[in-house]
Amino acid sequence: MTMKSSKLVIAGKELSSRFFLGTGRYPNPFVQNEAIRVSEAEVLTFAIRRVNLDAPSEDAILQHLDQDSFTYLPNTSGASNAEEAIRIARLAKASGISNWIKVEISADEKTLLPDPIETLKATETLANEGFVVLPYTSDDPILCRKLEEAGAAAVMPGGAPIGTGLGVLNPYNIGLIAEDSNVPIIVDAGLGSAKDIVEVMELGVDGVLMNTPVAKAKDPVKMAHAMKLAIEAGRASYEAGRIPKKKYATASSGYESLISR
Amino acid sequence: MTMKSSKLVIAGKELSSRFFLGTGRYPNPFVQNEAIRVSEAEVLTFAIRRVNLDAPSEDAILQHLDQDSFTYLPNTSGASNAEEAIRIARLAKASGISNWIKVEISADEKTLLPDPIETLKATETLANEGFVVLPYTSDDPILCRKLEEAGAAAVMPGGAPIGTGLGVLNPYNIGLIAEDSNVPIIVDAGLGSAKDIVEVMELGVDGVLMNTPVAKAKDPVKMAHAMKLAIEAGRASYEAGRIPKKKYATASSGYESLISR
Amino acid sequence: MTMKSSKLVIAGKELSSRFFLGTGRYPNPFVQNEAIRVSEAEVLTFAIRRVNLDAPSEDAILQHLDQDSFTYLPNTSGASNAEEAIRIARLAKASGISNWIKVEISADEKTLLPDPIETLKATETLANEGFVVLPYTSDDPILCRKLEEAGAAAVMPGGAPIGTGLGVLNPYNIGLIAEDSNVPIIVDAGLGSAKDIVEVMELGVDGVLMNTPVAKAKDPVKMAHAMKLAIEAGRASYEAGRIPKKKYATASSGYESLISR
Amino acid sequence: MTMKSSKLVIAGKELSSRFFLGTGRYPNPFVQNEAIRVSEAEVLTFAIRRVNLDAPSEDAILQHLDQDSFTYLPNTSGASNAEEAIRIARLAKASGISNWIKVEISADEKTLLPDPIETLKATETLANEGFVVLPYTSDDPILCRKLEEAGAAAVMPGGAPIGTGLGVLNPYNIGLIAEDSNVPIIVDAGLGSAKDIVEVMELGVDGVLMNTPVAKAKDPVKMAHAMKLAIEAGRASYEAGRIPKKKYATASSGYESLISR
Repeated sequence: MTMKSSKLVIAGKELSSRFFLGTGRYPNPFVQNEAIRVSEAEVLTFAIRRVNLDAPSEDAILQHLDQDSFTYLPNTSGASNAEEAIRIARLAKASGISNWIKVEISADEKTLLPDPIETLKATETLANEGFVVLPYTSDDPILCRKLEEAGAAAVMPGGAPIGTGLGVLNPYNIGLIAEDSNVPIIVDAGLGSAKDIVEVMELGVDGVLMNTPVAKAKDPVKMAHAMKLAIEAGRASYEAGRIPKKKYATASSGYESLISR
Repeated sequence: MTMKSSKLVIAGKELSSRFFLGTGRYPNPFVQNEAIRVSEAEVLTFAIRRVNLDAPSEDAILQHLDQDSFTYLPNTSGASNAEEAIRIARLAKASGISNWIKVEISADEKTLLPDPIETLKATETLANEGFVVLPYTSDDPILCRKLEEAGAAAVMPGGAPIGTGLGVLNPYNIGLIAEDSNVPIIVDAGLGSAKDIVEVMELGVDGVLMNTPVAKAKDPVKMAHAMKLAIEAGRASYEAGRIPKKKYATASSGYESLISR
Repeated sequence: MTMKSSKLVIAGKELSSRFFLGTGRYPNPFVQNEAIRVSEAEVLTFAIRRVNLDAPSEDAILQHLDQDSFTYLPNTSGASNAEEAIRIARLAKASGISNWIKVEISADEKTLLPDPIETLKATETLANEGFVVLPYTSDDPILCRKLEEAGAAAVMPGGAPIGTGLGVLNPYNIGLIAEDSNVPIIVDAGLGSAKDIVEVMELGVDGVLMNTPVAKAKDPVKMAHAMKLAIEAGRASYEAGRIPKKKYATASSGYESLISR
Repeated sequence: MTMKSSKLVIAGKELSSRFFLGTGRYPNPFVQNEAIRVSEAEVLTFAIRRVNLDAPSEDAILQHLDQDSFTYLPNTSGASNAEEAIRIARLAKASGISNWIKVEISADEKTLLPDPIETLKATETLANEGFVVLPYTSDDPILCRKLEEAGAAAVMPGGAPIGTGLGVLNPYNIGLIAEDSNVPIIVDAGLGSAKDIVEVMELGVDGVLMNTPVAKAKDPVKMAHAMKLAIEAGRASYEAGRIPKKKYATASSGYESLISR
């Protein structure tokens, strides 16, 4: 009997880990590196905005990472419309960082929630240009389907607004999206604790992207470990097939005990 | 930096695992044994009722287990009052199975919920007789304190009625119990999936006792693995200190990104 | 077609209102009186402790109320064991205030949660002495049944600790208690808003006791009105029989519209 | 002291009731009419599709209603894109039924969830043509804002998919939408019971549109009454200002009781 899960594949790339990790907001580079190591994440995300794109390999932190071990998923955070996001994505690709791009477009400072119309536009354009596009979106199931149809390599609905730690506000929608999608679904944003992670993984999504819940935990490295375990626990639980919920009790041991046979 | 958690100690016994596993309802002994192995549980529970207490070592399943690796926690399920539970416990001890006893007393067939008055009586008597008593109880915080005062080595509030898989119906109470208790708190009964496990562990309880969620999963062995990971994830998350919940968003990467420094 | 609900009857007394109102913590007596009037409550509760029992009719507020319109339900708050509660109840009865008594016993300052053992003892004793006993208890279903068997005229499980406004922490248990009880169930304590009220009434309970959610609202009189409506809405909804929950959609108007026939 | 709420105004029309009622799926016309009467709803919605638009006044049910008492809100259900919805709306207006229109566009049979892109297009076009447009939309806050900017007279986010009775799946989003909107917010679809109604009203929305929860209740007329009360209770509670939630208890009567002063 084997514990193997079917692998996650995005744009032909097979990933052993379902943990997508953000690189911002850690107390310092040492904690950041250790958290990344412990997480066993293979995909790392970071903002391209205001980057020195002339010499990305000289970046203070990036230079310490073995680039071959990771897939970089730069994001367009800071963009407030499709045009800006597209321009940022092209710059990132031209600088050689990656042809993967997380489309993240918001014009709302309070919630940083994604703009559905602009996100769809940018996804369509960038997918047509050959980018591997992973759009950050609301949990609107119809919009997620449209993003898939527009060429998204994976779709990333949010659990809650970025950095709130509120968890998955609408498990029903996330479950519906996972059920109906033909591309991987990665839940991105708003998660707070390991419970939230297991909950979304049990809904059948393919992975989770986190940053704040790890970086701003009291002990980011231990939390990176907790989140890694949570993702594995949630996936294994999903695959193992949970018991149905029942209104009334069923004896677990009354007549079927170990010794009583 | 180390991942070590402080160990769980009950009645002077140090346990590496926080997973307490029931032995009933598995499809067959092979699956049962494999699930036990994969779970890495050290404490196993089973009903004493109608046991051949003259020759427990000849039990069909128990004989395959290395007794030195496990702590047996026989339970009094089937007892409907303190007197019956006490009698069952004494028989188990006399037969040499264990001096640990899970007090489980119910007179309600529909819910199998524990009788608070009789459970308190039995706990007091058995603790005075030198048993290591772990009572299964409701999540009434005052009752849990009384059980501790009566000599319980650990207290085991239920998440929901046995076998329902409804999860932890009242996280507030479980959190309060964990916060105020001076003995280990093991959540027992009613949990359904790995999410439920992580949720209670993040509330600060010391361990979880399960049977049906593992034994009746579609793949019990894989679920045993999922639950083991969930317990570890929940404990690590609790120790790592989650981020606070906030109403509005906080950028995770806008100005603090990996590359942008 | 009639809107009439079956009446609530406690100890032979028929009540038109299912709203039990506490009289403490209002900004001033005028607001208190107006809130009581608007609530249409018929049962009022108040602490007996440290009362001038020699002259209850001279009480600053009570003297303004038409005693014939109300049933007084004095409570034993402040008692930390059965003995104290029994003594308080006897004093209240002797002073002529009422032979109804809300048994409220707590030894825990942080949560003010009721002591299950002492509450059961006091209920039994006072019921035997001819009191109309309404014990405040935890939502432990077995304990609620024992209180009924001990002679309680109605049983009052808490939704959450007093004054927290957390709402009904365990709707499952409250529903179970309502389903299995042979005496009226009045949910007491912890509720916060009109939503909480409708939720418990839809679970089939017979009434609700509140104090803080009305008295400490920004506008206590308007909140008394809101709560009165909420109790009626919840009861009517319970009696009208809600639609089942379904996983997927059903058109409400596609082919069955008003005009399209 | 007055109980008056500020009135709801849509497109200059002042409404006394915050209850928008659908007219489909009732057991028979008599129950339908009585439910409408008891609800005190002033705005009625129905599907235009396949209507005999040549003689709407001869409709079997509509002819029994006093048209002056109601505002008709025909809907475009059955439309799967903006073009179809626009065509339906124009026909309805031309036939003299109403210049109010509920834009309802779905291409997904399983969930009947609204298409965000097409809904936005239709809203813009119809608002420009002078319609009073109330679009049914997902609870995506950014999309709701875009609908407002496109000229919607009120915005109608769904609580859950139509007819499911699942209640408000994402109270956070609905609260955010109510908080940030400059036009009335009417929650439409998915609600199941009076509790759901009070919950959304307490979030600050301006009204609720229902059909199935009333029409398919066991007793539709009593449920119409329950829902009417629930809307009023929820609005009054919102205006009265609920108590804050607290983690630990506060005595309601210990030292501030009625009699003890």
